[in-house]
Amino acid sequence: MSESNRTSNIADRTSHIAHPKPPRPRIVILGGGFAGVYAARRLLKRDRSLDVHVVNRENYMVFQPMLAEVLSGCVGVADTVSPLRRLIPRATLHMRDVDSIDLNAKQVVLSPGFLPKPRVLDYDHLVIALGNVTDFRGMTGLAEHAFPFKTLGDALSLRNHVIRILEEADAEPDRGLRDALLTFVVAGGGFSGVEALAEMQDFVRRAIGHYQQISLRDCKFILLHSRDRILPEVDPSLGEYAQRLLESRGIDLWLETRLAAATASEAVLADGRRIATKTLVSTVPSHPNPAVEALADVLKPVGGMNDRGKLLCDGACRVNGMEGLWAVGDCAVTPLPPDENGKPVFAPPTAQHAIRAADLCADNIIATMTDRPTRDFTFAGLGSLAALGGRRGIAQVMGVKLSGLAAWFLWRTIYWMKMPGLDTKLRVGVSWFLDLFLPPALIQLRLGKSRGVAQEHFEPGQNIFEQGDLGDRVYIIVTGKAQVVRQENGHEQTLAELGPGQYFGEMALLNRAPRNATVRCIEPMNVLSIQKGDFTSLVTHLDELRASFQATADKRAGG
Amino acid sequence: MSESNRTSNIADRTSHIAHPKPPRPRIVILGGGFAGVYAARRLLKRDRSLDVHVVNRENYMVFQPMLAEVLSGCVGVADTVSPLRRLIPRATLHMRDVDSIDLNAKQVVLSPGFLPKPRVLDYDHLVIALGNVTDFRGMTGLAEHAFPFKTLGDALSLRNHVIRILEEADAEPDRGLRDALLTFVVAGGGFSGVEALAEMQDFVRRAIGHYQQISLRDCKFILLHSRDRILPEVDPSLGEYAQRLLESRGIDLWLETRLAAATASEAVLADGRRIATKTLVSTVPSHPNPAVEALADVLKPVGGMNDRGKLLCDGACRVNGMEGLWAVGDCAVTPLPPDENGKPVFAPPTAQHAIRAADLCADNIIATMTDRPTRDFTFAGLGSLAALGGRRGIAQVMGVKLSGLAAWFLWRTIYWMKMPGLDTKLRVGVSWFLDLFLPPALIQLRLGKSRGVAQEHFEPGQNIFEQGDLGDRVYIIVTGKAQVVRQENGHEQTLAELGPGQYFGEMALLNRAPRNATVRCIEPMNVLSIQKGDFTSLVTHLDELRASFQATADKRAGG
Repeated sequence: MSESNRTSNIADRTSHIAHPKPPRPRIVILGGGFAGVYAARRLLKRDRSLDVHVVNRENYMVFQPMLAEVLSGCVGVADTVSPLRRLIPRATLHMRDVDSIDLNAKQVVLSPGFLPKPRVLDYDHLVIALGNVTDFRGMTGLAEHAFPFKTLGDALSLRNHVIRILEEADAEPDRGLRDALLTFVVAGGGFSGVEALAEMQDFVRRAIGHYQQISLRDCKFILLHSRDRILPEVDPSLGEYAQRLLESRGIDLWLETRLAAATASEAVLADGRRIATKTLVSTVPSHPNPAVEALADVLKPVGGMNDRGKLLCDGACRVNGMEGLWAVGDCAVTPLPPDENGKPVFAPPTAQHAIRAADLCADNIIATMTDRPTRDFTFAGLGSLAALGGRRGIAQVMGVKLSGLAAWFLWRTIYWMKMPGLDTKLRVGVSWFLDLFLPPALIQLRLGKSRGVAQEHFEPGQNIFEQGDLGDRVYIIVTGKAQVVRQENGHEQTLAELGPGQYFGEMALLNRAPRNATVRCIEPMNVLSIQKGDFTSLVTHLDELRASFQATADKRAGG
Repeated sequence: MSESNRTSNIADRTSHIAHPKPPRPRIVILGGGFAGVYAARRLLKRDRSLDVHVVNRENYMVFQPMLAEVLSGCVGVADTVSPLRRLIPRATLHMRDVDSIDLNAKQVVLSPGFLPKPRVLDYDHLVIALGNVTDFRGMTGLAEHAFPFKTLGDALSLRNHVIRILEEADAEPDRGLRDALLTFVVAGGGFSGVEALAEMQDFVRRAIGHYQQISLRDCKFILLHSRDRILPEVDPSLGEYAQRLLESRGIDLWLETRLAAATASEAVLADGRRIATKTLVSTVPSHPNPAVEALADVLKPVGGMNDRGKLLCDGACRVNGMEGLWAVGDCAVTPLPPDENGKPVFAPPTAQHAIRAADLCADNIIATMTDRPTRDFTFAGLGSLAALGGRRGIAQVMGVKLSGLAAWFLWRTIYWMKMPGLDTKLRVGVSWFLDLFLPPALIQLRLGKSRGVAQEHFEPGQNIFEQGDLGDRVYIIVTGKAQVVRQENGHEQTLAELGPGQYFGEMALLNRAPRNATVRCIEPMNVLSIQKGDFTSLVTHLDELRASFQATADKRAGG
């Protein structure tokens, strides 16, 4: 059954909850970032009677440059993201993920809400502005153990993690673990990575006075970058200024260094070196949204998608080869006028370009509906800005280069002016003002419970757990190999070797006793781990599972 | 093996990470609420060389009266909780759960941190100030479907949920589901329940302007209370004022009504009535901390614990029958001087009493260590205050009764003065000031993923899912019965009956198709549900499980 058959099937069966299309044309915009929001605003500004729907997973627009601020500032900064309902009050909003897109039937299926019913939207024009998603596919152990840094949730999670690290390190007597706890690694030396590391160090520096057992000298901050200089986005002289500044603050720059893998306690580099750390942030990989990727079969044959899953557009923001389909922002390849030598030029993935392309896209949709000619995209760009923590920054605006306090001040001023809504401006202003003289808030927020079934990665030589540890979870090997060893009278005895499909760790849980052996990784392993509570629920109620686990546990105890 | 044997066993094996006790006496305080924090402060104020350890799950003290404010205000209010490191900078803090207490060995075992190693603390004096925990044991379906309202995490989760409700209701075409979404029920008419419902309504009232399809008239707010009047803590005349005020705002008071059970879509009352709702908050049940409950075997025989798991103390805050053990706050029964008729009187569970008992407890510990006599607890209480949302409140302070705006203003002023730390005072002050004229922030924060294995409760007549729904999880029946029915050519056919230990819902997941039948509850059911992603991970890697699920699915498809 093809994807589009399946979709219309669902739509048929659940038509009672579909949004029926009114006689006037409907425009559906997927994505509530800069591109999606500005397209919706422009459409409704030009004609407030238009039927515009915006689909976004969150009910707010993240002001991306503020993510690093969330890291170092107070939680209140979360109030500074802009609710979509205030930015585009006349659009119909759907706070959902996109489940699938049927380009032939002109339908979008949204993921279910409180009930397991999908929501179906028919459209006349579809604007895809879904940007990128973090996706660690193909990078060993990163999905399991690295922190992404793309959404507000990512920033708050990382902030919580850093606070937890400080709490743990302060009371940790084991020297080696303490050093690993206090090593902070960021992979990726572009804007996002540099800002994340700089603000993280800033936060640690300001918070550390409250921890009796830690000083800043105990902490290590490492930036991994694959090229020979950081911030490839700006002029070399500014990049060098940033480099010197970060180094003078004690941040280690490991240039021409590539991250290869991660475990729960190590960053593994391409040259084989390992860094013991509990905090690895990766800003590197970004992939197309899965709902966009799924369109490859339809769009690649007509020239509407390239091999990296980006939507190929004409100068009017129309996706090639598909009527009624538009794309703006980071998910699209938008041509600019060719350079003086006739070489093609494309819009870089910045907010300034996304905003202007979105406006143009909205104009062109209205032009198409009213049978007028469309216009092509053209915009020269304004410049770049970055904050480097500790009230320093770099700027390159309309040909002028700035660095230090002046650039940081310019950074704040420009972003503050760009923020949508007076109330957001006021909240941010007050928050910034208080931040100048108040210590940072150290609150670790815990929302929700941790995941029941987790994936973990181990490298050879690592112990999954040690004899005598508390039994807090059970493991299932997906790939790789492990060895079960027991310490007795001072020497070590190998009890068994375990491979894919086998599980271990169930004995301590079934018998409520400490681990009676050590399990050590001998070939790189991917495992599923199930937490104690969930494991107990499962084996208590699933007869087959209990019988199987008990039989294995008995065999092992007897053997 | 007894609990205490198991514990010392763990301590022996993991002594390399134990905190060795220095020669000076060590005081360990369990709990970082008012009682624990004030005890630690007093101890270190009297003698800053004391070795004081404080154990708390969070690294902050929640100012309980502020929880309702978190519900209606901006997220920034989270900054107003007080970090323990700032309140008690000279104490050693452990951000951990208490795993177990060994009263004979004088050891506390803390739950593991990043590694599965327990942390062991030896003590000379132990102060238990663990308060209560929310525990819905014995209340059908509440653990699965009701929101507790006790911690900052609870308040933020509830706030996020209410925002999600508004987002869903705004775009929901199904009338019945929409009404259920917009019905908000709170069980418990004490301070905590009344404040929670009042602030929740306040938030909805202020936010609703942003939702095109909802008006306040569509929303229902219901307070369930088992007695004949709310707020039993205050004078009847104030309780009546509060009652009239809430009713005039459109809040329904269902008095002499008891909550009996809950499902994902209903509150079930003791008299059999049902309220269709997606938001049920229960402030009713509170239980002793599990680590305290586990001491029953040791403490009950010596008169140190009653049947409700409360620690029985003498007037000096010493737990009866156990040397070196102290208890303060809501987990303790602390005697006050008897009344004029000689009848025993006990301290009520309020912050004002906890603070003063904690100070006394600290003084008595120092007196014991220096062989001086201890003093007994005596305190008359100051009064009560409650906020009712919409800038109204009630107060009963030193014999004076107040209501309305004046009481609300007094509420804010007194709590503001009580807040520890100048920076907290400033942040709260500014936040309150901005709140007077800015619209509320509508940001729904999503941190972490939802739980892989969940427990759910269903009542007879409810559909677990319906034919044609999206397959998003698999179910295992723990207790109760269900019927599998299929609609064909307009009439319904019963395909099977399912009971405990059986599972259903796997076919849609294995075949990636919509549900091909409806499953309906026919006897009250408790089920485990496993989310799609986790189910897929499990069956892919656990051969036995896959084989078993596949065999059942084949049989059902063939039958």
